[in-house]
Amino acid sequence: MRAVTIVDGDLRYQEHPDPEPGDNELLVSVEAAGINNADLMQRLGLYPAPPGAPSDIPGMELAGEVVATGRRTTRFSIGDRVMAVVGGGAQAELAVVDERCALPVPSALPWPDAGGFPEAFSTAYDALFTQCGLAFGERVLVTGAAGGVGTAGVQLSAATGARCVASVRHAHLRDSVAALGATAADPDAALGLGPFDVVLELVGASSLPGVLGAMALGGRIAVIGVGGGAQAGVDLLVVMQRRLRISGSTLRARSLVEKAVVATEVERHVVPLLEAGDVRVPLEATVPMDRAGEAYEGFRQGGKLGKIVLVPPR
Amino acid sequence: MRAVTIVDGDLRYQEHPDPEPGDNELLVSVEAAGINNADLMQRLGLYPAPPGAPSDIPGMELAGEVVATGRRTTRFSIGDRVMAVVGGGAQAELAVVDERCALPVPSALPWPDAGGFPEAFSTAYDALFTQCGLAFGERVLVTGAAGGVGTAGVQLSAATGARCVASVRHAHLRDSVAALGATAADPDAALGLGPFDVVLELVGASSLPGVLGAMALGGRIAVIGVGGGAQAGVDLLVVMQRRLRISGSTLRARSLVEKAVVATEVERHVVPLLEAGDVRVPLEATVPMDRAGEAYEGFRQGGKLGKIVLVPPR
Repeated sequence: MRAVTIVDGDLRYQEHPDPEPGDNELLVSVEAAGINNADLMQRLGLYPAPPGAPSDIPGMELAGEVVATGRRTTRFSIGDRVMAVVGGGAQAELAVVDERCALPVPSALPWPDAGGFPEAFSTAYDALFTQCGLAFGERVLVTGAAGGVGTAGVQLSAATGARCVASVRHAHLRDSVAALGATAADPDAALGLGPFDVVLELVGASSLPGVLGAMALGGRIAVIGVGGGAQAGVDLLVVMQRRLRISGSTLRARSLVEKAVVATEVERHVVPLLEAGDVRVPLEATVPMDRAGEAYEGFRQGGKLGKIVLVPPR
Repeated sequence: MRAVTIVDGDLRYQEHPDPEPGDNELLVSVEAAGINNADLMQRLGLYPAPPGAPSDIPGMELAGEVVATGRRTTRFSIGDRVMAVVGGGAQAELAVVDERCALPVPSALPWPDAGGFPEAFSTAYDALFTQCGLAFGERVLVTGAAGGVGTAGVQLSAATGARCVASVRHAHLRDSVAALGATAADPDAALGLGPFDVVLELVGASSLPGVLGAMALGGRIAVIGVGGGAQAGVDLLVVMQRRLRISGSTLRARSLVEKAVVATEVERHVVPLLEAGDVRVPLEATVPMDRAGEAYEGFRQGGKLGKIVLVPPR
């Protein structure tokens, strides 16, 4: 098979041996694989692939057709359409997926949408609901709302009865984000639209102090991105007086069992919304895998709405 | 009645009109009232009493005998021994307590112990169990462990099957804290005894960065004190990679209903341990209310084990 390959920090599209599915794994013919920040960090050598994932093939999510099954698989068969968060190796013609982490792809969903769904929606679901316990009627702020996780967070909030404010730095993206179900504003103005019960913090240290000042009593903040820096100043008196909770997480560092738990919840709670059209996967671009370098550069520059997804060149 | 009174930042023991119990309140003849950090801050004008509490009489906790009851009270009668966290006004001969926040005093418990119990044990219970979900077998760090909340946290951890490390700055207090059920060490050495699942952070900004580096995956930190500063530096990448949760709280800022919820839980879970002798109230000193100034000064200086409790001069 061919795969996007990190060679001395460059991206090439080159031959590898085909992966072989383990007992509980599916071999998937990849039709689409979203780009995520972890891929850029892995390319820079800052975020090594977890044990068991190929060290030189990036890609944390994929969608494709099952072409072979391990001998202990039970849920999926050859020909099934699946999508999943994986430890790495997704940006390739073939990839293996533990079937306990695989989600069924709704029949009407195009491949590029499916390839951009798992990571962003699993991350946003986990942050908003599992970490922050978001409930209907509450007021949510999503910072850096135009990206993959941001647009997923905005839509999940709106679809579940929460009131969402989207903080969007690029003025030209605000109308598109608002159309997903939020009041979109520049970062300073967004803080004035609180107080917020829940914040999906996708920017990091440059955003967090302002966010703390805009929290409601009992508010919860999930920190999922640090593009705006990791060394944050936190006023502990504000945290105490407003009884706040700050949590952080990454999907990638989790064990297989933990990822399977998230996948089970996403299949139960989020895939039905996707199937019904209550949430969708905004796609900024679909790029062939042999042009991964330019796709990564577009991702890095920001100013995009939603996902950039790689597809096999055909 | 006479009461400890804040007059231009000084403490005097002087006459006030007797308080009258509202419909759901008990009038309590105070036998003991613990000193807490909030009292010192209130004296300095930094922590105003919440609405409904006397603005010039400090005191957040008390124990005493019911001497009159509001017309809608149902749980307690004249002559009952009660203890409670209150919004203020505890350091007086008489105080009113909403009966939904009152706890029964175990029959064998001396008054000074009862007067030093409610605030420290309610705070430690709320932080360790409600906020951090501490469970048996987990490893706990209590920073600033020799004080009222600290000694309560150490004992609650030990009594419920957790493994407790106590960080104690003053060397002469370490053996006494260890005797409450912890491994006691100086703050730097304590960090080396992790990783920790739960941290009761009673020191604040000067302690938190080191604590972050000693956390286990999925660890929870409750920030309850800021004697070591409030402006903390937090590495968000560590928070994300270790999937940490930082929360803060104060009891005093809570509504009556919220305080009643805490009291109900403390009555169910902690008072039985107190009654059985599984936890106790370490008392550094018992001081008459007309010498409140020197008691506050002793509290401020630190280096003490457990509580300083005021009693009516007789």
